[in-house]
Amino acid sequence: MAVYTDITDAELDAFLAAYDLGTPLAFKGIAEGVENSNFLLETTTGRYILTVYERRMKEAELPYFLDLLAWLAQHGYPSAAPVANRAGKTLGHIRAKPAAIVAFLQGMSVRKPGVQHCREAGEGLARLHLAAHGYPGRRANALGQDAWAPMFDGLKSAAEDLKPGLSAVISQDLATMAAAWPMDLPQGTIHADLFPDNVFFLDDKFSAAIDFYFACDDALAYDLAVCLNAWCFEADGGFNVTAGRALIAGYERHRPLSAAERQALPVLAWGAAMRFFLTRLNDWGSTPAGALVKPKDPLEYERKLAVHRAAYQGGQGLILFADGAS
Amino acid sequence: MAVYTDITDAELDAFLAAYDLGTPLAFKGIAEGVENSNFLLETTTGRYILTVYERRMKEAELPYFLDLLAWLAQHGYPSAAPVANRAGKTLGHIRAKPAAIVAFLQGMSVRKPGVQHCREAGEGLARLHLAAHGYPGRRANALGQDAWAPMFDGLKSAAEDLKPGLSAVISQDLATMAAAWPMDLPQGTIHADLFPDNVFFLDDKFSAAIDFYFACDDALAYDLAVCLNAWCFEADGGFNVTAGRALIAGYERHRPLSAAERQALPVLAWGAAMRFFLTRLNDWGSTPAGALVKPKDPLEYERKLAVHRAAYQGGQGLILFADGAS
Repeated sequence: MAVYTDITDAELDAFLAAYDLGTPLAFKGIAEGVENSNFLLETTTGRYILTVYERRMKEAELPYFLDLLAWLAQHGYPSAAPVANRAGKTLGHIRAKPAAIVAFLQGMSVRKPGVQHCREAGEGLARLHLAAHGYPGRRANALGQDAWAPMFDGLKSAAEDLKPGLSAVISQDLATMAAAWPMDLPQGTIHADLFPDNVFFLDDKFSAAIDFYFACDDALAYDLAVCLNAWCFEADGGFNVTAGRALIAGYERHRPLSAAERQALPVLAWGAAMRFFLTRLNDWGSTPAGALVKPKDPLEYERKLAVHRAAYQGGQGLILFADGAS
Repeated sequence: MAVYTDITDAELDAFLAAYDLGTPLAFKGIAEGVENSNFLLETTTGRYILTVYERRMKEAELPYFLDLLAWLAQHGYPSAAPVANRAGKTLGHIRAKPAAIVAFLQGMSVRKPGVQHCREAGEGLARLHLAAHGYPGRRANALGQDAWAPMFDGLKSAAEDLKPGLSAVISQDLATMAAAWPMDLPQGTIHADLFPDNVFFLDDKFSAAIDFYFACDDALAYDLAVCLNAWCFEADGGFNVTAGRALIAGYERHRPLSAAERQALPVLAWGAAMRFFLTRLNDWGSTPAGALVKPKDPLEYERKLAVHRAAYQGGQGLILFADGAS
């Protein structure tokens, strides 16, 4: 959570001159999002979030994300609709960095989701998959299953530093996943990062999803697997089956899973844990001391990997379905 | 600009349970204020700023500031009115830190004030002095003239590190100021830190003052002197007489200065430069590398000191008045 780019009133005025948003009434940097600088912008026409894209964002990819947000808004999904300037463009520049204005969304994320929040998040995810259906933008999942082994090649010593012996365990995991990874599941546009801090609630009901900057094409059920990891583990590392079942039940209210998707969930959840373990391990080693953003502990996902490994190898999966499938 | 305290939704709910503010609709950490953590809080009853007081703030002093804000709001001054909880208290606690809710204010600060902004800031300052008149709270200026020499005793080597030979110059300044400092000017409650980032404008008109956490009892004209330094210097270090005259003219629209106050302005402005030079010099040396808040360069105020020293010693002052007084 940080504000990396400082914007003066003169820079804001120059940026807003291209928009029909009236005159600014308030402008405050907000601590939301990790990768970008975000500002609350209030004008005579309403409230907005201005985002300045920093660091990791490739400008060439931004239209994919902004067009997706526009598509979702047009299809009734509660996400932040981009605001176009008078030239019809949703992407501009401030201080030579790409910048965009989106609608302000009410709602608050929850730190410790309860079972009801998991059910709501599942509903929000399924609605996203349905609303995104037909979106013409394409983006490969740069952090998908085929990327993990090459990524881990550069992280073996970091894994050993984290926990001696871990490198061999992860290598074996990756080999097992590569052999077992399902290739024929229903594909679509996925959020790929729908953690609790990216979901807003109002009155404990799902109200909006934010931060679509990992969105890509992949198996829809993989998105659900990401959520199982992000929403349904207890602080002590245990998987909360009740929360997991609620998440899936919420999802299936809008989009029932196929038998193949259910069957695949254990390996998808294991793989989803691998994806976040690998990026956290990478960030852990490469974030300079004193940086504004504190890297997330890769051990959290190392423990989730262990849970999924045991469930997969034991053949029982996560016991998510009454019929025994996964 | 920073958010030091992380507040969970559960902690916020627990805090808000003591208030009649409805249910929260949005909550975002904002990059406003240097010393404290500030959050934008939107509820079903309106918009507010929640402040968690950090570090330097002494809890025993907070009622002085909050009562002053309440007094000012009651007397029609545009500042952030504190919100009392059901027990009638404006001060509560979050994570064992003092915390308060105040009204959200529209308006935006300007980075490079023009002459018109200086005039408006002068009006805003005079209106503050008039509105605060009669406020019963008392707080000595801990950073007033009598504090500077003792403070500098611990900073002499830091001054030498900044600029060889500076220690002797500052010591001489302090002796001159101590002898010349006016003791019989009209006193009152002053803001003491009314820099451009603490003033909001709407349509280039003064709309509100914020950040009263240096407010104290001192000479009213000293507050104006702080503003002359904060608002009327060019980036190249030159004093903008036109801006200075506009600031004073704006002030005098609401509270004309006495002859003694006019006469005192050159030494008051020199002293006000000393106060900020000393605290910046102190912060410069004591802020750890990699801290979230970047200390402000003390050399900016060393240059302002030099301008005021020369004007004072030349006997011409800042040429702020057509009649020749200062």
